[in-house]
Amino acid sequence: MQVKPRILLTGATGFLGSNLARTFVRQGVPLAILVRPCSNITVLGDIISGLKMYTWDGSYATVRAAIADFKPDVVVHVASMIQSEHKSTDIPELFAANITYGSYLLEAMAVSGVKHIINTGTFWQHYKKQPYLPVNLYAATKQAFCDILEYYTDACGIKAISMELFDTYGVNDTRKKIIPLLLHAWRTGETLDMSPGEQEIMLVHIDDVCMAYIKAIELIQRADYTGHRKYAISHGTPIQLQALVKLIGVVTGKSISACFGKRPYRVREVMQVCTGSILPDWNPKVDLHEGIRRTFYRSL
Amino acid sequence: MQVKPRILLTGATGFLGSNLARTFVRQGVPLAILVRPCSNITVLGDIISGLKMYTWDGSYATVRAAIADFKPDVVVHVASMIQSEHKSTDIPELFAANITYGSYLLEAMAVSGVKHIINTGTFWQHYKKQPYLPVNLYAATKQAFCDILEYYTDACGIKAISMELFDTYGVNDTRKKIIPLLLHAWRTGETLDMSPGEQEIMLVHIDDVCMAYIKAIELIQRADYTGHRKYAISHGTPIQLQALVKLIGVVTGKSISACFGKRPYRVREVMQVCTGSILPDWNPKVDLHEGIRRTFYRSL
Repeated sequence: MQVKPRILLTGATGFLGSNLARTFVRQGVPLAILVRPCSNITVLGDIISGLKMYTWDGSYATVRAAIADFKPDVVVHVASMIQSEHKSTDIPELFAANITYGSYLLEAMAVSGVKHIINTGTFWQHYKKQPYLPVNLYAATKQAFCDILEYYTDACGIKAISMELFDTYGVNDTRKKIIPLLLHAWRTGETLDMSPGEQEIMLVHIDDVCMAYIKAIELIQRADYTGHRKYAISHGTPIQLQALVKLIGVVTGKSISACFGKRPYRVREVMQVCTGSILPDWNPKVDLHEGIRRTFYRSL
Repeated sequence: MQVKPRILLTGATGFLGSNLARTFVRQGVPLAILVRPCSNITVLGDIISGLKMYTWDGSYATVRAAIADFKPDVVVHVASMIQSEHKSTDIPELFAANITYGSYLLEAMAVSGVKHIINTGTFWQHYKKQPYLPVNLYAATKQAFCDILEYYTDACGIKAISMELFDTYGVNDTRKKIIPLLLHAWRTGETLDMSPGEQEIMLVHIDDVCMAYIKAIELIQRADYTGHRKYAISHGTPIQLQALVKLIGVVTGKSISACFGKRPYRVREVMQVCTGSILPDWNPKVDLHEGIRRTFYRSL
């Protein structure tokens, strides 16, 4: 980045957040992170010395204090509780993480005069390619937060970009997602029981996703930027799960033992992904071949 | 009502809720109310003996227990924390009352197989006559709840109607709203300092609003009803505040001492109200003349 905005980052100990934290530190921006008391900050390694850390204990007061003390130019809100299928007992935490936490950020921003927020949404907000139809309750909480955001953008002059993410992947991903599962099977030779595998997935490499956040931070600080815009962080080329498994075999020279059809599709499985308006001036550079090479070889 | 569905009502101790409770009991429907431990149930008077009462302590478990025990055919969700302008410290309670409480109802309905919910929204969701632009954070929480509702309607087969209310009024209204304020000035002769008074208000009499809920309950139980529809509970004839004050003088033969322009308009005052699709088969019967007569004379 040519200008170096002060950035406050939430969710910094997650897969995306920790990659963003490293990217921001590498770019030389003054960075603060807002983490929960229980967050495992060791995932950030030695970059921890290059940033300021605040703790969110669940209260508005701690969010307010972090924003008032650090005075960020841009808040990058990545923290989220992700769930493809929820249990009844998950609801309080799901709402606290995905609706209330972000709303506290917005309220504190309005009070402190902080004007820019990059928010993180999901393609799951667009089931059946609809403008809004949530795949799951998680996606509904993301949309609910966008509605709260509309109030703060219109009434308090806050500017916002919501990044609608697809499947992110890369090295050191400990989430229970498709690439880590495939990587485990590829490494160990264990057979992986799968769904029939005809669903499309849009895999976007973490390095490209981080570059998208950089571009969004530049865009939102432009004098002519207004309101709340939503952008798909997509390169536009999904792949069927079956084809992905084959491609990994071809690229790495070692095939995965996958048993398709052994498991049912997920409830409300997304068979075709839908890409809305893509973030402007962002050119993803890591194609799937290269992404597989980076992820599988570097993870060895 | 010709069929008598079992109704579970939230918000039963508020102005709208208590009028609905009386209406339902008068119609002979099996009624249960779900109230907070701190709710003042004395406002319900002697109808309390004609209904079943459950307590919501803020937890999912108590909502779940009420739904599982009473097995309603229709949930009528009126409970709400209404605020035209919020303070930072209000947010937790605002979200709990307007997003989480209703979501607990939906989750418990999904688990128990209860299929119908009448939800309560506000015309404040449509600032500047937009499909969605919230006047205030309160309206944003109402929209956020609608997003959660979309998940439950699409994924769990729940059917929903959101009643978008305007200004309700009638006797025994203790809220700090325009009609009670005018009534106080009318009774006491005290001068009321007001805004310039050129804003439109859509006053809908509480008896008509209660009839709208009855119609919605009938509509949602029809075999061909699906999804989540939003209806304006409006007779389509707003009145400017200045004209309203004059009209009260004409109808009651006693004028109100109102000092227009002594106070500023509210932040984001709604100058023109916008009516969307009006609830079908509902014919409001209490025009403003009659409504003023009923409210002012009966309140003496």
